[in-house]
Amino acid sequence: MKCRVCGKEASIRLTAYNTALCADDFLAFFEKRVVQTIQKYNLIEKSDVPLVAVSGGKDSLSLWHIMHLAGYPADAIYIDLGIGEYSQVSFEKAKAAAARLKRRIYRFSMPALFEKGLEELSRKMKRAPCSLCGFIKRYLMNRACVDGGYTVLATGHNLDDEASALLGNLLYWKEDYLWRKSIALEGRGAYLAKKVKPFFLCSEREAAAYAILRGIDYVYEECPYSVDAKTLLYKGLLNKVEEVSPATKIRFVKGYLKQVREQETQADAGRCARCGYPSYAEVCNFCRLFERFGIGDGLQIESYEPAGLSSIDEDSRGAGIV
Amino acid sequence: MKCRVCGKEASIRLTAYNTALCADDFLAFFEKRVVQTIQKYNLIEKSDVPLVAVSGGKDSLSLWHIMHLAGYPADAIYIDLGIGEYSQVSFEKAKAAAARLKRRIYRFSMPALFEKGLEELSRKMKRAPCSLCGFIKRYLMNRACVDGGYTVLATGHNLDDEASALLGNLLYWKEDYLWRKSIALEGRGAYLAKKVKPFFLCSEREAAAYAILRGIDYVYEECPYSVDAKTLLYKGLLNKVEEVSPATKIRFVKGYLKQVREQETQADAGRCARCGYPSYAEVCNFCRLFERFGIGDGLQIESYEPAGLSSIDEDSRGAGIV
Repeated sequence: MKCRVCGKEASIRLTAYNTALCADDFLAFFEKRVVQTIQKYNLIEKSDVPLVAVSGGKDSLSLWHIMHLAGYPADAIYIDLGIGEYSQVSFEKAKAAAARLKRRIYRFSMPALFEKGLEELSRKMKRAPCSLCGFIKRYLMNRACVDGGYTVLATGHNLDDEASALLGNLLYWKEDYLWRKSIALEGRGAYLAKKVKPFFLCSEREAAAYAILRGIDYVYEECPYSVDAKTLLYKGLLNKVEEVSPATKIRFVKGYLKQVREQETQADAGRCARCGYPSYAEVCNFCRLFERFGIGDGLQIESYEPAGLSSIDEDSRGAGIV
Repeated sequence: MKCRVCGKEASIRLTAYNTALCADDFLAFFEKRVVQTIQKYNLIEKSDVPLVAVSGGKDSLSLWHIMHLAGYPADAIYIDLGIGEYSQVSFEKAKAAAARLKRRIYRFSMPALFEKGLEELSRKMKRAPCSLCGFIKRYLMNRACVDGGYTVLATGHNLDDEASALLGNLLYWKEDYLWRKSIALEGRGAYLAKKVKPFFLCSEREAAAYAILRGIDYVYEECPYSVDAKTLLYKGLLNKVEEVSPATKIRFVKGYLKQVREQETQADAGRCARCGYPSYAEVCNFCRLFERFGIGDGLQIESYEPAGLSSIDEDSRGAGIV
């Protein structure tokens, strides 16, 4: 199997693109695709000040790296869920990336906010860890972005994440979610950040190959809670279709994006009476959680600044984030 | 495992309904569900004169049987595709059902129309057998219904057929097909029959169990062409989800039906300049096929009338069908 570009021995076969590439040409190909996605869907403008949500995993660290290479320099936000060693190792990987890229990384720590990690909070709240984690992360990432003066929040959701979530939403026609998962969600005013997913069209396998071939050190373990049986089932099923019909996943989510644009805009969420951030109820889930379990007066965010911090955007953002 | 109704030993477990039933109670349950579907979705009115499309398989023969039991007496149309012994055996099963129900059955025969069976025609036309079969059957069934004075055409498409087709249409967002597959499609004037699918919410497994437990003799073999790899793949994948989450298939198609009602009505097809039946082109596919390969002056339909033919609707329908 030869590299389609240079003719040398290929390292990776990409059936969805009916091609095979050597390591170097794959890296270039992958980076180009991400940049094309950013441009085609207007995810990040040159004037934007982006923040990347990083977990320490392959997707978010690769995304941060590519944004750096492609001229979209970004700081990062890491949410420490207090899941024992997993959270520690994940943050080490994220900090190492920050040092490599010479960018600032922020950390919200659940144990610092609540004196409890996700597991204990989940038990006390009688709510599944993944559901709890979902809304806490969404809230904190949005606040870090808005309060820090960043204009867009980028996440590492990949093609397999999106296709499997879409399949689940379609199988049960979950109308509250179905048409809300787009590659870009516009922000509103000074309380809701614009959110974008530059890896929307990149498969999990491609993102892993990129991280490995690019030498990005990431946490290999999956979050102990994130191995949700349904998501894995859907990913597996879609990969079975993909085997028989390459490029199915990408056609599936691209077709969906077209439908989303044709759908009416979703009703706006209101704003929380306490914190002013988006909420469908009078008081948002996060404020209610914080009222019950929070310690201290407000959100504590830590900022890590590696030696030789890039000075492109040395403004007041970091200091005034909360 | 006990029957939920009578407490005797159960014969069939229905995870989608979280129940188990003995043979007799399953038969009653299944028949009731079909009748409820007919009523809830207004598939067949008491004043309708229905025609059932039968293939000799479990779905269509069970449907014909239940319609008979439930006070929707119907004649049937069988399309003989000239697929060797398979077609012969299938028609024998369908004729046996006609004799049992004392109803008329019509037959269109491809070899009689074209002097060729599906295989030869497919080769000559350089078109896949299933695609060719699809449009020929649709055309002939519609004509048999309209010309025969029937007011509604019922087909035996089951839940698995619909869910797998829907999954395929969603994975590739086939907009030309996606929103057109409903449980009932209204007819138009005297050229397009109303079409209904009373088994839309009944699984393949349930339909097979019904036929077996009711003693309906059907052709066990699948059509040698119909074993389409994609359809089988999708059915298998959906059954995997169903194993983990019972009732997924039924929620999937029910949610879809709700969406269909919310979609705009599809653009009307036009009418063929030759035959006057529906066509998206000036001359319909069938007329072009018939011009090229047809023998004789027009469509030949045969009518089989079993001894003791039911006289409920002894009008002029049979004679004037073509």
